[in-house]
Amino acid sequence: MTGNTFGRVFRVTTFGESHGYAVGCVVDGCPAGLSLGEEDINRELRRRRPGGRFASPRKEKDEAKIISGVFEDKTLGTPIAIIIENKDADSRAYEGIKDLARPGHADYTYFAKFGTRDWRGGGRASGRETAARVAGGAIAKKVLEKFGIRIYGYSGEIAGVKAEVDGEIEEIFEKAEKSEIRFPDAEKEEFALERIREAMREGESVGGIVEIVVRGVPAGLGEPVFMKADAYLAYALMSIPAVKGVEFGAGFESARMRGSESNDEMYVEKGQVGFYTNNAGGVLGGITTGQDLIIRLAVKPTPSISKIQKTVNLKTLENEEISVKGRHDPCIVPRAVVVAEAMTALAILDLMMLQGLVPRFL
Amino acid sequence: MTGNTFGRVFRVTTFGESHGYAVGCVVDGCPAGLSLGEEDINRELRRRRPGGRFASPRKEKDEAKIISGVFEDKTLGTPIAIIIENKDADSRAYEGIKDLARPGHADYTYFAKFGTRDWRGGGRASGRETAARVAGGAIAKKVLEKFGIRIYGYSGEIAGVKAEVDGEIEEIFEKAEKSEIRFPDAEKEEFALERIREAMREGESVGGIVEIVVRGVPAGLGEPVFMKADAYLAYALMSIPAVKGVEFGAGFESARMRGSESNDEMYVEKGQVGFYTNNAGGVLGGITTGQDLIIRLAVKPTPSISKIQKTVNLKTLENEEISVKGRHDPCIVPRAVVVAEAMTALAILDLMMLQGLVPRFL
Amino acid sequence: MTGNTFGRVFRVTTFGESHGYAVGCVVDGCPAGLSLGEEDINRELRRRRPGGRFASPRKEKDEAKIISGVFEDKTLGTPIAIIIENKDADSRAYEGIKDLARPGHADYTYFAKFGTRDWRGGGRASGRETAARVAGGAIAKKVLEKFGIRIYGYSGEIAGVKAEVDGEIEEIFEKAEKSEIRFPDAEKEEFALERIREAMREGESVGGIVEIVVRGVPAGLGEPVFMKADAYLAYALMSIPAVKGVEFGAGFESARMRGSESNDEMYVEKGQVGFYTNNAGGVLGGITTGQDLIIRLAVKPTPSISKIQKTVNLKTLENEEISVKGRHDPCIVPRAVVVAEAMTALAILDLMMLQGLVPRFL
Amino acid sequence: MTGNTFGRVFRVTTFGESHGYAVGCVVDGCPAGLSLGEEDINRELRRRRPGGRFASPRKEKDEAKIISGVFEDKTLGTPIAIIIENKDADSRAYEGIKDLARPGHADYTYFAKFGTRDWRGGGRASGRETAARVAGGAIAKKVLEKFGIRIYGYSGEIAGVKAEVDGEIEEIFEKAEKSEIRFPDAEKEEFALERIREAMREGESVGGIVEIVVRGVPAGLGEPVFMKADAYLAYALMSIPAVKGVEFGAGFESARMRGSESNDEMYVEKGQVGFYTNNAGGVLGGITTGQDLIIRLAVKPTPSISKIQKTVNLKTLENEEISVKGRHDPCIVPRAVVVAEAMTALAILDLMMLQGLVPRFL
Repeated sequence: MTGNTFGRVFRVTTFGESHGYAVGCVVDGCPAGLSLGEEDINRELRRRRPGGRFASPRKEKDEAKIISGVFEDKTLGTPIAIIIENKDADSRAYEGIKDLARPGHADYTYFAKFGTRDWRGGGRASGRETAARVAGGAIAKKVLEKFGIRIYGYSGEIAGVKAEVDGEIEEIFEKAEKSEIRFPDAEKEEFALERIREAMREGESVGGIVEIVVRGVPAGLGEPVFMKADAYLAYALMSIPAVKGVEFGAGFESARMRGSESNDEMYVEKGQVGFYTNNAGGVLGGITTGQDLIIRLAVKPTPSISKIQKTVNLKTLENEEISVKGRHDPCIVPRAVVVAEAMTALAILDLMMLQGLVPRFL
Repeated sequence: MTGNTFGRVFRVTTFGESHGYAVGCVVDGCPAGLSLGEEDINRELRRRRPGGRFASPRKEKDEAKIISGVFEDKTLGTPIAIIIENKDADSRAYEGIKDLARPGHADYTYFAKFGTRDWRGGGRASGRETAARVAGGAIAKKVLEKFGIRIYGYSGEIAGVKAEVDGEIEEIFEKAEKSEIRFPDAEKEEFALERIREAMREGESVGGIVEIVVRGVPAGLGEPVFMKADAYLAYALMSIPAVKGVEFGAGFESARMRGSESNDEMYVEKGQVGFYTNNAGGVLGGITTGQDLIIRLAVKPTPSISKIQKTVNLKTLENEEISVKGRHDPCIVPRAVVVAEAMTALAILDLMMLQGLVPRFL
Repeated sequence: MTGNTFGRVFRVTTFGESHGYAVGCVVDGCPAGLSLGEEDINRELRRRRPGGRFASPRKEKDEAKIISGVFEDKTLGTPIAIIIENKDADSRAYEGIKDLARPGHADYTYFAKFGTRDWRGGGRASGRETAARVAGGAIAKKVLEKFGIRIYGYSGEIAGVKAEVDGEIEEIFEKAEKSEIRFPDAEKEEFALERIREAMREGESVGGIVEIVVRGVPAGLGEPVFMKADAYLAYALMSIPAVKGVEFGAGFESARMRGSESNDEMYVEKGQVGFYTNNAGGVLGGITTGQDLIIRLAVKPTPSISKIQKTVNLKTLENEEISVKGRHDPCIVPRAVVVAEAMTALAILDLMMLQGLVPRFL
Repeated sequence: MTGNTFGRVFRVTTFGESHGYAVGCVVDGCPAGLSLGEEDINRELRRRRPGGRFASPRKEKDEAKIISGVFEDKTLGTPIAIIIENKDADSRAYEGIKDLARPGHADYTYFAKFGTRDWRGGGRASGRETAARVAGGAIAKKVLEKFGIRIYGYSGEIAGVKAEVDGEIEEIFEKAEKSEIRFPDAEKEEFALERIREAMREGESVGGIVEIVVRGVPAGLGEPVFMKADAYLAYALMSIPAVKGVEFGAGFESARMRGSESNDEMYVEKGQVGFYTNNAGGVLGGITTGQDLIIRLAVKPTPSISKIQKTVNLKTLENEEISVKGRHDPCIVPRAVVVAEAMTALAILDLMMLQGLVPRFL
């Protein structure tokens, strides 16, 4: 587990700056014999791509090019390198503010750490980097599907508007996929959209909550006491830009419950152990229970806003004001959903491989 | 980052079952030349120890024995092995329920993973294991103090009663240390205590929120894009038993903010960059800002309750009922505070060493 | 892979100084359900123990105490901590030379690295530390045996006297085990013994070659391109004190061969691929061929000799002379054999687990 | 330390098959602020490129393209991705033998491990992959030079002809660089060349010895007890294709020495500790002494020979004969020198960064 590599057995190393030649990743540890084409990756990249009316107008064509690790349409078991060229990068909007630290962004901290930074479009700290994660995650998802594991993400809340959902996760997910903001509650969607529009008009942005449900995870996954399944997922998901919190099952609500409410009682039916509830979110003692994993992420509002803010000039060390123009999503929650799915896939597959549950050729 | 080892450069490996001979840890990567005695560790172990009226009556004497890595009262730079004998273990209360899966506990999941388990006192999944983390954390804290970094933890909320705090963190911490439930708000403390007493009377338990503040962390700490400071801390903290969520700064609240509220505006004063607010909780883009780190953890109620619950017999696969007797804290939040401090110390020191900020001899 | 931890999935962390309270290890990642008792470890410790007439008179009782990870005589899948107390440590011989750097020893380099050192008996850099490796290796061997993998080590050469061996490795090994210097050639043994005796008389020491043969390794083990099976074994074996070289199969001889001599030609018999020769030593392109692994290690003469040598005082930085008295083996090759077997076992088991070939419960 | 990633802090992940679109690497952990251009990498790639009359006629243009991590000619501290396109790949020579296992090659073992393989030019197991290592090593060398550390490699022996060298390593290196076989002994060079020519005429190949000297390494580098400097270098160097052995200092010769010959006696001069000899090769107890590192590698003869050999058809499992045509070096030692330098640079820089000796911005 290192800076730009995620995973221990199924490992994804990402690279690339927002306005450099390309972003991309190297996926190491993928089992051999998996059918894999560029379209498998592009399908997920399109889901992440700014699409709706409220998303960034930057037209990221986002076409993945696989440059190694696949031969005659199947994985070789060797590293899969993927390049996604930065075709629509336009750095002009950044030139005027290249020495200013955009509030809520990593400009100041990158500068503090590295003594330098690529100011064009956020450089390495741009959301653009997550395209590479989604590419890696697309491969992980394909492997997981072979084991009956599916990951479903959607916007659980946007700008304070909460989606009311029930029914099977597959249906909820389908509804969300039809919504331009991945909001699975058609009734409430209009309120959420209105708040986004309002924010846009005022040079503002809004945040929300991403919900992830994983179905089909076998019981017994996770390595106590540190590399617990939930701890590792928290690591994976907190690494997504703009995520400020993560919770499992009843999460922060469980802090206000009593033991008998919080505990998930159990039963046996036809020789199978079952649970009456899932406050644990599918993990007990860091090991999966075989129930759905239920995870929620807090996503802060897009830090790039045109509203004027106080900031500093990193070069002159003088106080300044800034209005961030460029092309920015007023709400990144719908796109963060796709990145969260990818990171979840990477973490779960890595845990499975670490535990010896995935053969090295399929 | 593996099952029972935390850290990459400053590494703590813990071992031991609750009712085995001992729990303990091996601390590898500690700089040489640090003054270290058993009392340095015992001091922290006492803070974790069940102490208050509402804590488990198990009298863990918890005396650390250092068996390597220290010579003439100073660390050698070699592994420091620490043993904490399990002197007050009493397995009788577990005998009657040894085949039953206690709801909310890891009994079922350990069994699913390992095909076996030590049923005495929760075995490896017991909170007892955290004594070893606290021992390792005590050493990390000593190193961090040399760099002016201090970690403060307290109960921010218990059983739904929120502590109202303001002022400097040092004072808040001092108040909390005087409270038997680490609650820094003397006025509200009585309400929290009453809820705990009530829960006890009813064979129940309660949860709460742990708050951690870290002062003195330099700007520039953390390795993007995956091993972000906050992602790594989330990993460290979610690995603590009973923790169901973690958030930084405004955390889940930021999901309901607008960009201009959420962003921390900046200024320069006397050549130093400062922030007007700290919604980020001290981390931007995964790298520390130099402000306080602010972290909150959701702790679920103790799963061991005497109230009758439905469960299963793991051997016969029959439905059963269970009342967990033994010796259990009705509220583990105050003790979780100390463990959270330890894990925070381990994560921060490891990030610092990974970044080359700590010499190998002090 | 870190300072005091070997392995990525099956991980052994060793600790302890030669004259401290104990040496020991924590074995993490061992599958659950393995029968394991202290005698399993003690048996291997006795093989390593100074035994022959020519070995160190230090009477290391070397009794392993398992303090975690085993319950009702079976492994739990949790960390197995093992303590071997240092019962016969006698530091008096070191007091007179505590500031002198013994030539050929790590005294100077530990001091350069850590700014301090435990001068008693070599401290952490003592051969004593290898007892902990042998303890960990004993567990790895037990797991490997379940998969039909056996590791055989012997002294291939001592003080320039080469053992002439042929026949099956099991027999060679048995002969070696009967020899007090693990020399499998009874005829030549006397020459080797004479050279050792001669060296002793002259206050000198001698070196030799350890040979390791591993039978039963499946084809397909090893992770190219860096964590090749042979690269990983070289790492494991070069970490043994006094080892100055490692070679596989024809090794350095292959540098003088031609392609047609060096290449191992292949055939098919009854549907099985076979090789006419084994110059590769069982590894091609870093992946095992299914043949025996054949490894040779160069072991330098024991650096502790009573003959007077020039050296320096690390404190006063003055030139001095030294005669190392203490209790030292004039030839450590026979004991290095046992340590080499242990490290081989650790490396192979870790590679197997990394590759998902070992279930997490047996 | 994993399959296709080398290093823990300074990490190089390589990718690419011999006849795929490209080979390349991602270098993560490079300090920010290093001047870096493509020419820095191309210079080393040219050294590795088949150049002499006796090298493979495949014209690898080998031009590195840096696609991330560098901005305005300086490193950003973010991952540096490098692509080297495979421009002169010609798979026709492989078509006729695509199901045959070439003796001495990894064809059979890759097939055993992955159940598939890219048969074109050896796929991932081709020496071509080492171009990516050399690219990563070029960056490591640049960083090391800032700390006064220089790595010198040359052919110490070819086809049994040993170079007789003395004098300063800088001069030896310069002589070797002028030789088309990197042979630093002009007199003996003709004999070595004659043996290569002879081998070529007979459809054969020859091996040799690579020698590496590292000057300027500070005393105190290396992490006992497992990640010793020499153990880690052995891991790095044994991962190079065709290397069958590695030794430090007196290496295998030390097995025949006596203690007083093998030990390097010490002295103090002007307050500096010095050694009279360097049989240890610059490492004691796994930690560097501050002397030159001296390492020797056994390189087997190129396995691709046109001479007819017995082998098997991996598809039909029938016995066959093979004559490997293609374009192959009759002696890869001179090219292995450059790869060995690169791996040495990677290992040393990683150890330095792990130890906190390199700031994260230069």
